[in-house]
Amino acid sequence: MPTSLVTGAAGFIGSHVVDALIARGHNVIALDDLSGGFVDNVNPKAVFIEASCVDHTRLDRLFREYKFDYVFHLAAYAAEGLSHFIKRFNYTNNVIGSVNLINEAVKHEVKRFIFTSSIAVYGKNQLPMREDLVPAPEDSYGVAKYAVELDLKASHEMFGLDYVIFRPHNVYGERQNTGDKYRNVIGIFMNQLLAGDPLTIFGDGEQKRAFSYVGDVAPIIAESATLDAARNEVFNVGADTVYTVNQLAAEVMDAMSAKQSINHLPARNEVVDAWSDHSKVQRIFSIHEETPLSEGLSRMVEWVRQVGVRKSKPFEGIEIEKNLPGSWRQTTHE
Amino acid sequence: MPTSLVTGAAGFIGSHVVDALIARGHNVIALDDLSGGFVDNVNPKAVFIEASCVDHTRLDRLFREYKFDYVFHLAAYAAEGLSHFIKRFNYTNNVIGSVNLINEAVKHEVKRFIFTSSIAVYGKNQLPMREDLVPAPEDSYGVAKYAVELDLKASHEMFGLDYVIFRPHNVYGERQNTGDKYRNVIGIFMNQLLAGDPLTIFGDGEQKRAFSYVGDVAPIIAESATLDAARNEVFNVGADTVYTVNQLAAEVMDAMSAKQSINHLPARNEVVDAWSDHSKVQRIFSIHEETPLSEGLSRMVEWVRQVGVRKSKPFEGIEIEKNLPGSWRQTTHE
Repeated sequence: MPTSLVTGAAGFIGSHVVDALIARGHNVIALDDLSGGFVDNVNPKAVFIEASCVDHTRLDRLFREYKFDYVFHLAAYAAEGLSHFIKRFNYTNNVIGSVNLINEAVKHEVKRFIFTSSIAVYGKNQLPMREDLVPAPEDSYGVAKYAVELDLKASHEMFGLDYVIFRPHNVYGERQNTGDKYRNVIGIFMNQLLAGDPLTIFGDGEQKRAFSYVGDVAPIIAESATLDAARNEVFNVGADTVYTVNQLAAEVMDAMSAKQSINHLPARNEVVDAWSDHSKVQRIFSIHEETPLSEGLSRMVEWVRQVGVRKSKPFEGIEIEKNLPGSWRQTTHE
Repeated sequence: MPTSLVTGAAGFIGSHVVDALIARGHNVIALDDLSGGFVDNVNPKAVFIEASCVDHTRLDRLFREYKFDYVFHLAAYAAEGLSHFIKRFNYTNNVIGSVNLINEAVKHEVKRFIFTSSIAVYGKNQLPMREDLVPAPEDSYGVAKYAVELDLKASHEMFGLDYVIFRPHNVYGERQNTGDKYRNVIGIFMNQLLAGDPLTIFGDGEQKRAFSYVGDVAPIIAESATLDAARNEVFNVGADTVYTVNQLAAEVMDAMSAKQSINHLPARNEVVDAWSDHSKVQRIFSIHEETPLSEGLSRMVEWVRQVGVRKSKPFEGIEIEKNLPGSWRQTTHE
């Protein structure tokens, strides 16, 4: 029975990876600092530990105690757009936290380190984004993820640490933190519809994305620990079907059977179009689901109605106020 | 009279940049945490402040007080080979420290942020390394430097912060910390010769490098603040003439009029050959010196003889012992 550490285990994708690992018979230690996650998300068959990856002395104790076979590192503060304004926080959480784990994984000879990077590493790039494109991240979140990817490769060369890197994109579904106004457009839309508020869209809404149902992504991440062909490889993972954000808004209103006006906010400085090629992951993994958007949204809506409106807490530690979108400046929920 | 902040100002290249800026009439605030630098290196016409770039509250106060026109960020723990074994320390000093400065530079609308990156960002790459090659750093030091380069570009796009990035290589000369056994082969050789010890070389000594005299590099960095054609550009900077480390050992023994045997240690996992193209910097800057190696070494030897043998302090915070070269494990000076 392999023992796996999952970080960000009370978060959205992390909690689904915990479920998928338990279904595969892993003994799971579920780590989360609860900055964005919820204990209720964690499968009761996992051992939950409240701690941050930034706390390296705590990690050292955990690795000694549990002798992990695999590390699934999903913990991150994943608000890409906000990362410009919280650079120190971003790099501390997403680089220092990751590097603390890499250190322990090397010292304790973990069999494989599975890291969820992001489509953000590509920056503006050719479409669809393929794994063999040269990354060119354009925001601090993408830079942090890419730095960790590069450090994993260096750690493999220097210490023989095996890894798998995933670059998921626009993942949605049950257990998403719908109260985070800085990220996850689907969760934001659902929360706004529940509250009877207009939907907010940055810019004209014609930016294009492919929205990936979490139930299609988490099992692939879980399978990667033991799949030989995945060793030391990078994979895009997620849906192929592309929507504009305007089309998405219509789909979410359909799924919620609700109608609201749309409030177009000034455009953000963001990568306009981002979707990726998944032929590599499809070639190597046994799972090839693409849950249609309407179906994934229905499942998420069912869950969202149980959870109800979530109050958006403002991010407390903004480091740079300059050019911060006005809607992110407000301290009340919207 | 422009006011400039120089970080790493008590260090090797930093202290020479301070001199070059004072010669150009800048009012210089010289910041250093003295982890590797020496107060004696700092030009008495500069205001010296002992502080670390990791201390963001201190930086915030300094930026408020001095309203810097230019920031020259040279502070770093620059032991490339050791960086694999001190990942957390490396990323904390070299990424978090840099990002703290970028935050303040954005908030206080600094006119230009001059950053010394490194040839380490290239990794194994085509030779000579040109600025338009795609970086592929292979150690944690190079990854950290590249992450800061990318964040500067993102900060320019998002906030209009102007920057100049330099990628120097193998810089040597007066004020180098000859007591650091983890880096700076010329300083190590001179220290060993002064002590009457054999010279140590990792591997067969046929790895190739171009050694750059600090007096040729520092004035270019100083000039970059106000040169219009340098704005938001990346420059290799350093010498063109390539030597093997064995040839270098012979040159240093000549310069010191000393003879010692050579102790070949097991090869390290390092980039074997690294030199770079400087046509871009030569096209744009007014300074085109290449001090011949023999002449630069003579000047450095004169200084080294005044300073005498320096005791090598072991690095106290090794994070990973695995695969650490044996000579770096020893705690006595060698």
